[in-house]
Amino acid sequence: MTAQIGIYGYGNLGKGVESEITKNPDLRLAAIFTRRPPESLQTRSAAPVVPAASVLEWKDKIDVMILCGGSANDLPAQGPELAKHFNTVDSFDTHANIPAYLSAVDASAKSGGRISVLSVGWDPGIFSLLRLYAGAIIPDGKTYTFWGKGVSQGHSAAIRGIEGVQNAVQYTIPADAAMHSVRNGETPELAAGQKHTRVCYVAAAEGADKGRIETEIKQMPNYFAGYDTTVHFVSDDVLKTEHSKLTHGGNVIHTGKTGDGNAQGIELSLTLDSNPEFTASILLAYARAAHRLAAKGESGARTAFDIPPILLWGLAAEDAVKRLL
Amino acid sequence: MTAQIGIYGYGNLGKGVESEITKNPDLRLAAIFTRRPPESLQTRSAAPVVPAASVLEWKDKIDVMILCGGSANDLPAQGPELAKHFNTVDSFDTHANIPAYLSAVDASAKSGGRISVLSVGWDPGIFSLLRLYAGAIIPDGKTYTFWGKGVSQGHSAAIRGIEGVQNAVQYTIPADAAMHSVRNGETPELAAGQKHTRVCYVAAAEGADKGRIETEIKQMPNYFAGYDTTVHFVSDDVLKTEHSKLTHGGNVIHTGKTGDGNAQGIELSLTLDSNPEFTASILLAYARAAHRLAAKGESGARTAFDIPPILLWGLAAEDAVKRLL
Repeated sequence: MTAQIGIYGYGNLGKGVESEITKNPDLRLAAIFTRRPPESLQTRSAAPVVPAASVLEWKDKIDVMILCGGSANDLPAQGPELAKHFNTVDSFDTHANIPAYLSAVDASAKSGGRISVLSVGWDPGIFSLLRLYAGAIIPDGKTYTFWGKGVSQGHSAAIRGIEGVQNAVQYTIPADAAMHSVRNGETPELAAGQKHTRVCYVAAAEGADKGRIETEIKQMPNYFAGYDTTVHFVSDDVLKTEHSKLTHGGNVIHTGKTGDGNAQGIELSLTLDSNPEFTASILLAYARAAHRLAAKGESGARTAFDIPPILLWGLAAEDAVKRLL
Repeated sequence: MTAQIGIYGYGNLGKGVESEITKNPDLRLAAIFTRRPPESLQTRSAAPVVPAASVLEWKDKIDVMILCGGSANDLPAQGPELAKHFNTVDSFDTHANIPAYLSAVDASAKSGGRISVLSVGWDPGIFSLLRLYAGAIIPDGKTYTFWGKGVSQGHSAAIRGIEGVQNAVQYTIPADAAMHSVRNGETPELAAGQKHTRVCYVAAAEGADKGRIETEIKQMPNYFAGYDTTVHFVSDDVLKTEHSKLTHGGNVIHTGKTGDGNAQGIELSLTLDSNPEFTASILLAYARAAHRLAAKGESGARTAFDIPPILLWGLAAEDAVKRLL
């Protein structure tokens, strides 16, 4: 059952979907939709590039639309709009707004008789699954999530917004001591700044006041204040050659007790050379699931919590039981 | 929706279920079923102990029966028998026989209009889930499973079968070099004996020939031949005081590539002070899922692959979306 896939939005994530879809013989790239002039896109595949404004003409030609826009400005409107006309999958990741987004997309998908699978990246997504499974199995326990080592695009952008900064890359790094304590089952209370440190590589404009830039970074509320932050000034060349990969990763650790104080530990860790390609890979697996749910006549919004794992599997179900169970 | 739970078989696993059910306010222990004389059991709870022969009298009083017998001798017959009359959950773990067991239990559960969730321990079970999710997300990759450090009850029993052995405990230990290579994404071909080493603590009977025992252990086909095996002779006292905990654990590591050779690594690790209590905890979470599936009128056999994760969660689904997603 081959599914025709659309990519809606052609940034890093859309490019990742375009590259990884080739690993899934049952998924076929039908078209890429963009708000930019189509001829301005340098795509890698032979799929047509279509103006976003014409998307509804593709209603019957796309089985699942993968939404690759940003969570801050694109998805809050695009998600509910497109969910009415297409089966959709996205990696909406503004944690606090997921419940509201879920109900908006759900209403829209139901009204159009479509399926939407949302927030299926690695966090939210795969990490959420570990939190759920582990918490359900060992209820007398506590879950911690560490992010990194990896590039935080939001923090990098925040630094680039400072006057005199030409370019910047920020790495989020889990604090060793905190991770060690959690792995030991000590269930510490950790403030955000105790779980992670932040390391910034900054290219300053010629003549810019580096002391002021460093102070502005370290004192920036929400982003850096309260964190152990290190700032390295480097050339733009060094940034491009040594810090251009969107690596990331992280750990979810759940520890708890059973019986007469027996410690039980569950840990999931991700080590990713390419954050967008990994997220794209998850979106593709859930696109398959969405296609299968739609084929059963289901409609409405779903999260990773609702989807039977076998629906992600591209080969025969019996094969999974035989080889993987 | 409180579920009345039955425990069928009162060994280490049954005792684990009895202890861990108290962590789940929506599950209530209704009765313990045993083939031994009921009065010979020293249980910890107030639940009645019932002769296994009377189990059918409890048909309408048990929502889910948790099968705690062994995979070698008990479950192959008990699973299909009980699945006809009860919703059941088990941790059947003879990997090669799962497809046959699945179809026997499925036929039986369907004929009785019941739900059976089978092979939901940690391997098969939680480890299988990681193999499935990771393989679906990064199809261009390879999955490795390492067990230990932990006590292998099968290997310990095999040593105890040797003449002159009074008591024995065998630890399976993942080989560092192999695990390191796998984590590095080297996708090596590893023979079974290269993935794990085996360390045995043996109490020999007085006057027994230790040299012969050691040789017999190291040459035992399937169990020890081909493995790097170490044998330590200790007193029975040392075995009881230092090696009586059924610790276990392991790692599932999936590594693969995306894009232009970007390495992506996914690893799940378990560190368990008590193997039976952890398995019992998984069985309880899936007992909740079985109860919910039965309430929807579903019937037949299911594995962890088929079950939407949210069905394991004891609190409200909205709460999971808010707190865990």
